[in-house]
Amino acid sequence: MDEAARSLSATGRTRLRRFPERGRTDRADLEAILDDGLMCFVGAVVEGSPRVVPMVYGRINDTLYLHGSVANQVLTAARDGAELCVSVTDVDELVLANSLFHHSVNFRSAMIYGRGRLVTDQREQVAGLRAAADQLVPGRSATLDAPTRKQLAATIVIALPLEEASVKVRQGPPNGEAGDYDRPIWAGVLPLTQTWGEPLSDPKLRTATAIPDHVADMAGRPLR
Amino acid sequence: MDEAARSLSATGRTRLRRFPERGRTDRADLEAILDDGLMCFVGAVVEGSPRVVPMVYGRINDTLYLHGSVANQVLTAARDGAELCVSVTDVDELVLANSLFHHSVNFRSAMIYGRGRLVTDQREQVAGLRAAADQLVPGRSATLDAPTRKQLAATIVIALPLEEASVKVRQGPPNGEAGDYDRPIWAGVLPLTQTWGEPLSDPKLRTATAIPDHVADMAGRPLR
Repeated sequence: MDEAARSLSATGRTRLRRFPERGRTDRADLEAILDDGLMCFVGAVVEGSPRVVPMVYGRINDTLYLHGSVANQVLTAARDGAELCVSVTDVDELVLANSLFHHSVNFRSAMIYGRGRLVTDQREQVAGLRAAADQLVPGRSATLDAPTRKQLAATIVIALPLEEASVKVRQGPPNGEAGDYDRPIWAGVLPLTQTWGEPLSDPKLRTATAIPDHVADMAGRPLR
Repeated sequence: MDEAARSLSATGRTRLRRFPERGRTDRADLEAILDDGLMCFVGAVVEGSPRVVPMVYGRINDTLYLHGSVANQVLTAARDGAELCVSVTDVDELVLANSLFHHSVNFRSAMIYGRGRLVTDQREQVAGLRAAADQLVPGRSATLDAPTRKQLAATIVIALPLEEASVKVRQGPPNGEAGDYDRPIWAGVLPLTQTWGEPLSDPKLRTATAIPDHVADMAGRPLR
C-alpha cells in the first residue's frame, strides 16, 4: 500500500484542538494501539442519550470487530445504522507536575468514528469472534471450535472500518511552567505496568486438563 | 443516611438486560469502583454524533468531578447542558472458556448517567481539581498550590451528581455449558494486575528535590 493510503484521514472531528503535536497520522500507530489494548469503550446514541459500554474487540486488517448479546443496546443501535465512537486508551504513566494544573497522564489513545456493518456471513462472524479471543490471549482461538448456530443467533457481530480515526500520544515529563521550577516541589512521572498472573483452572473441568502453553506462558509477562 | 437513600436508583437504562444477577444496587459498590479506578470514559453527543473521551476524574461524596480544557468538545457540550454517560471499568481477569462463545472478562464496571453542572465557584473548582490529583496519587494535592486565575479560566470543571448509575460485576470461572466439559479443552481465568513502578524525576527540576513519600511509597504497590 502506498504511503498516502497508510495515513489516517483528517476530518473535522479527528483534528486535534489541543496539543496537535501529540497527534499521530500513521496508520501503524493506530494499529499498534489497537493491538496493545484489551478493552474498548464504545459510544452510541441510544434513545436520544449517549451510552458508553466497555467491550472486548478484535482487529483483522482494516476492520475492528465488536460483538455481544442481541440484548446490548449499543450493538442493536449499531446494527440499525447508528454512528459509533470507539476509544482504546492505554495509560503508561502518571504525570505528576509541580502544579495542580499540569497534572496529566502519559497515554496512547485511539478514537475511531464511523458506522458499523452488521456481519451476517457466518464465516466472517466466526472470524470476528476468533479475533476477539486472540486479542485477549494470542493463539487462544486455534484451540476452540466455532460457535454453534444457536450461539451465533444470540450474538451481534459488527464490523467497523478503520477509516476515520485519530491517534493521540502523550509521553515524557510534565509540561511545567518556568516559574514552577523555582520552588522545591517534586515533579516527575510514575509508571504503571500491567502484568499477567498465574492462571486458575475452572473447577468444572472434569479431568486435570493441563494449562496449555499459550496461557501458561503469559504468567508474569507484561500485558503486551 | 438511611438504607434506601444509599441504594442506587433503578431507571430504564440502569436496569440490566443481561445477567441481572451481576448487578449491584448498593451505593458503596459504586463508590468502591470509582475510588479504585484511574480513568473514566465520558460520552456525549457532539454535533449530532457520539463522542467518547478518556479523562481523569475525582469524587467528592456524591459528586463526580470532571475537568479539562475549554477546547474539549465533550466538556463544552456538558457545560451547555448535554447529557453525559461515564464509564469506569476495571478488568481483573480474562475469562478463558472452553468455548469461543463464553470467553469474557471479569470486571467491575460503573456507568453514570446525567447532566453535569458547570462549576463556577472558584473554591469548588479547586476542590474538583484537587480531588482529581488525589485520585491519581492519594495525598498529592496537599503538596500543591491552587491553580492561578489564568489556569482556572482555561479549564472547565463539571460536577456530575452520582444519582443515576448502574454497577455491574463479573467474577468467577467461565460460564461453560455442560457439554463443553466433556472434552479436554482447558478453561479458567487469567488474572491481570496493575503495579506502580519507580518514579522518574522531571529533568527540569533545578535542584535535587527528594521524591516525596506519597509518591515514593507507591513503587511496587498494586494500583489500589
